[in-house]
Amino acid sequence: MYTLYSMQRSGNCYKVRLALAQLAIPHRLVEVDILKGDTHTPDFLAKNPNGQVPLLEVAPGRYLPESNAILWYIAGGTPLAPEDRIVRAEALQWMFFEQHAIEPNIGAAYFWLALVKGGRELQQHALEDWMEDGYRSLGVMEKQLTGHRFFAGERYSIADIALYAYTHLAHECDFDLSRFPAIRDWLERVAAEPSHVRMDFTPLPAAAE
Amino acid sequence: MYTLYSMQRSGNCYKVRLALAQLAIPHRLVEVDILKGDTHTPDFLAKNPNGQVPLLEVAPGRYLPESNAILWYIAGGTPLAPEDRIVRAEALQWMFFEQHAIEPNIGAAYFWLALVKGGRELQQHALEDWMEDGYRSLGVMEKQLTGHRFFAGERYSIADIALYAYTHLAHECDFDLSRFPAIRDWLERVAAEPSHVRMDFTPLPAAAE
Repeated sequence: MYTLYSMQRSGNCYKVRLALAQLAIPHRLVEVDILKGDTHTPDFLAKNPNGQVPLLEVAPGRYLPESNAILWYIAGGTPLAPEDRIVRAEALQWMFFEQHAIEPNIGAAYFWLALVKGGRELQQHALEDWMEDGYRSLGVMEKQLTGHRFFAGERYSIADIALYAYTHLAHECDFDLSRFPAIRDWLERVAAEPSHVRMDFTPLPAAAE
Repeated sequence: MYTLYSMQRSGNCYKVRLALAQLAIPHRLVEVDILKGDTHTPDFLAKNPNGQVPLLEVAPGRYLPESNAILWYIAGGTPLAPEDRIVRAEALQWMFFEQHAIEPNIGAAYFWLALVKGGRELQQHALEDWMEDGYRSLGVMEKQLTGHRFFAGERYSIADIALYAYTHLAHECDFDLSRFPAIRDWLERVAAEPSHVRMDFTPLPAAAE
């Protein structure tokens, strides 16, 4: 059984928890608190030298980091992972976009404004850049979703899961989505997918072995 | 035949040009100058609303952006793209790492210090963060390469191509690689791969149709 090291309030971790739930994959969940330094202990760094969650133990002692790589790993061979060559490339396109255009902006704003007490004061100099780049990236998403129901191949996939994680938190960190109607409709479509779970969902503990 | 929109001095574009060369895939090359605003014309934005290169026209009127998604698209089914489930996930892991931990730091430092005249003054406030985060990320790579010849599956793959692009430019933008011996050895191994081309390589014009 997989073990997932995850922080409940992390968007990157939520991606994996959502996909595991929708794919009904049994797993053990280990809650890790970034804010308390849990990802920088010698024990954790031995598992992931990059000191980040989510981290999936795919086999005893073999650890896979990076939320979007984990999504491809667990969803491979299921309807959530496109197999057609160009659709798969387009799903990857949006997942790489997510990691350099959404997560560093909306994700960073969320971390400092919603999670860290006093974050607004600490990151005052960076917030303006995150808002500007974040709005520009939301504009790129809005353009794609105007005329497309989902990001790749006109069906719900791990590309949507990847982009949903931080986009659905944007309103909690000062982003105003009122001028992005296509994004708001897509957020509703994603939340209406079968077996959707919210970010505050806590799965039942795995059955005792 | 593919058309690649590319800027000669961009590391992200170099990834694709290197893979196309090593896979001997014929293509037409359109040089685009980011510094002159070529990626923000209405014509270019119609092809890629995100206004970035590289951009691959995979079929007439169908455009694929994102360097690492393009790598997976063109290398699929070749020895450069791992097919084993966990090795493929580990290649993806390092390519996502590259986009959020190397490109935004070493790539940004390279852009402002090596390409933009006066960039050091313009980005003085950000340089310190890029150097700190860049060194931390190089440390993660050094750890992986201590005991591994390549990033995924112990053989040269598109994960190495993705990470090579900006890492081999690090010394041009103030990074000192002397304390990263495993990275320096790996840079040499990558450059010794068959059909390797340097970043300043200009391919022969495609044959007339």
